[in-house]
Amino acid sequence: MIVRDLNEIIKNDPDRVVSDARWSSIRMLLAQDKMGFSFHVTFLEAGSEHTFEYKNHFESVYCMQGKGSITDLATGETHRIKPGVMYALNAHDRHILRAEEELVMACVFNPPVTGSEVHREDGSYALEDA
Amino acid sequence: MIVRDLNEIIKNDPDRVVSDARWSSIRMLLAQDKMGFSFHVTFLEAGSEHTFEYKNHFESVYCMQGKGSITDLATGETHRIKPGVMYALNAHDRHILRAEEELVMACVFNPPVTGSEVHREDGSYALEDA
Repeated sequence: MIVRDLNEIIKNDPDRVVSDARWSSIRMLLAQDKMGFSFHVTFLEAGSEHTFEYKNHFESVYCMQGKGSITDLATGETHRIKPGVMYALNAHDRHILRAEEELVMACVFNPPVTGSEVHREDGSYALEDA
Repeated sequence: MIVRDLNEIIKNDPDRVVSDARWSSIRMLLAQDKMGFSFHVTFLEAGSEHTFEYKNHFESVYCMQGKGSITDLATGETHRIKPGVMYALNAHDRHILRAEEELVMACVFNPPVTGSEVHREDGSYALEDA
């Protein structure tokens, strides 16, 4: 059994904290944990806007806190994000995520993120061996 | 892109709500959603105690709200559960989960739950074709 505390990771385990200018993501589970998925808690700054496209991963994102919106760039459709709303990128959907208030999201990736990926310019993560 | 709202599911989609005497689980993503994992939001009643063992699944559980503890029945070790704490059953660990206050947990299963499993007497889910 693995037991981890978000606040302990933030304080003591910088390798599991990945930050960009206006978001940070705490990797509670990575590929090395061998669960077959990775699990991250991600904070997106109030007022920020992000374009992401995970060409190589499925991702689900559950809103635990905050307010914002997501636009599906394939359809142009925009959905409200608030606590209790989940979106799942089952078609590697290119999208814009906007945080009106700080968003705190529970994110699951399949295949699991290894921790060594970087966000590429197109908003995707490379696969470890890609 | 799949977008779902916990509160809408509770109101309008009883097939995705599974309840036992002292817990209920809202299946935000199931196997049919083809994400390779399932994602549930689970409520465990204050004062309740549960013995689970997912012989056929890996599960991670992230505490979003509430207070309690988990005991690993293999080692006898007990860990505090509070918001920000996650446990991952990477060895199909038989365990007791206790809710001192109502617990609200974000749960990920691999392989994904189909929705037609029942908790067996040993606290596990059968596999769909088992």
